[in-house]
Amino acid sequence: MNWSKKFRVKPGATVKLNQIDASYTEPYDCGEQSVSELTASNEQISASQYQMYAEHKRSLLICLQGRDASGKDGVINHVFAAMNPQGCNVHSFKVPSHRESEHDFLWRYHQATPRQGYVAIFNRSHYEEVLVVRVHNLVSKKLWTSRYQQINEFERLLHANGTHILKFYLHIDKSEQLARFKRRLEDPNRHWKISESDYTERDHWSAYTNAFEEALMRCSTAHAPWFIIPANHKWFRDLAVSNIVRETLQAMNMQFPAPTVDIEELRKRYHQAL
Amino acid sequence: MNWSKKFRVKPGATVKLNQIDASYTEPYDCGEQSVSELTASNEQISASQYQMYAEHKRSLLICLQGRDASGKDGVINHVFAAMNPQGCNVHSFKVPSHRESEHDFLWRYHQATPRQGYVAIFNRSHYEEVLVVRVHNLVSKKLWTSRYQQINEFERLLHANGTHILKFYLHIDKSEQLARFKRRLEDPNRHWKISESDYTERDHWSAYTNAFEEALMRCSTAHAPWFIIPANHKWFRDLAVSNIVRETLQAMNMQFPAPTVDIEELRKRYHQAL
Repeated sequence: MNWSKKFRVKPGATVKLNQIDASYTEPYDCGEQSVSELTASNEQISASQYQMYAEHKRSLLICLQGRDASGKDGVINHVFAAMNPQGCNVHSFKVPSHRESEHDFLWRYHQATPRQGYVAIFNRSHYEEVLVVRVHNLVSKKLWTSRYQQINEFERLLHANGTHILKFYLHIDKSEQLARFKRRLEDPNRHWKISESDYTERDHWSAYTNAFEEALMRCSTAHAPWFIIPANHKWFRDLAVSNIVRETLQAMNMQFPAPTVDIEELRKRYHQAL
Repeated sequence: MNWSKKFRVKPGATVKLNQIDASYTEPYDCGEQSVSELTASNEQISASQYQMYAEHKRSLLICLQGRDASGKDGVINHVFAAMNPQGCNVHSFKVPSHRESEHDFLWRYHQATPRQGYVAIFNRSHYEEVLVVRVHNLVSKKLWTSRYQQINEFERLLHANGTHILKFYLHIDKSEQLARFKRRLEDPNRHWKISESDYTERDHWSAYTNAFEEALMRCSTAHAPWFIIPANHKWFRDLAVSNIVRETLQAMNMQFPAPTVDIEELRKRYHQAL
């Protein structure tokens, strides 16, 4: 199966989230089948990451978006934790600092983009600037409307300079979200992160749907595709994200740099006695 | 066993690296016994890290030092990879950029210190400023001599503001290093990172020994201890580092923050029907 092709939003395509099954798991019946496949895919990611680090030319930027409890943290723990932490940085973007808010809206995201050989994971990303700010009228419509093109141009700049970009929308439905909130209430270790707004934000469910759909439609490009990942089943979500990252890294066909020394010569000179 | 106590350099103690057995593994006979212990220790680290992240008050800075091939990358892969990448950043310090070299020697390290709730791993650290620069006379003796106190004061500042500091010297002997270089020669996937200087640096072995000893003696403090880890056996090295980190995190006795909402009230209001 070509996972990337299956879940990619084709540039220019119409997206209706309500028509996409968040519980989709085909061709799998249950999570047990997928455990060894996830491990194998993660291992290949890890091997490719090492090659990317060695090659030191290109980089990978992964943006995770989705509603609260859609599994952004889970994907980081179950897929990206398999990477070598030395070459992988996770960035969570909270409320902007005073200094950050004095710059254009892409400034702080640009600073966190991956350098050559590295992977950067954005746990929420510059797309928040056309999502939460739109739903809550934090900036004018004229302003957020202008941002889609600016985002596309920003991503094109990154891509042209060697940064491959993958953007995942983790798709859960409204009842699954409520069920997950309930499980949080049942786990004392997670009480500290529950807030009333988790629930009140649900009143804006369709406004968020509209905002996500527009971002998915206007900003899925050949150089920075969006993927809509059915995420009601955590195991399928992890498997899909892992396989898409694996396919992307493999297609990049990384090469180890040629040695800068004469290996045979070193062997003779320093290891003869061993 | 109290691992921290066993391998800690007592403040003011004399260190003679030649008298410390780099092949030490007591009370273990072989690595197989240690596999499940390492897994258990890493799992506890991961749980404590989550609590530290939740508590959002304190942080942990881990400095890894050691000669080439002593296993700094290995420790990152076998111990710190168990952490959630979201709360853990690894920093490798290479040749300073032009801008970095225009500042005092601690400036770039200070920028990489962990924020509240986070772990930062320094793969090589500010100690390079009293190691390689000393051995190769890159700065004057007067200058590097003044740095020990400056480093102690810098670390005291961090500690006073909630950053716990652990510093590991990975101790291998000269023949083990050569054996590891030989294994690199035998693995084509690692040829790209072999350089002639790996070997020529061995001519400065005792100068490095002196430099490490002075750093270990002058900068092992109650608030920022050094640990000398026998590292000829990789499994013992990993086990020792993991256990010391585990003990440190457990002693910090992290607490989940109290919920900011009324859990019972939320349960009634939003989940009654479920």
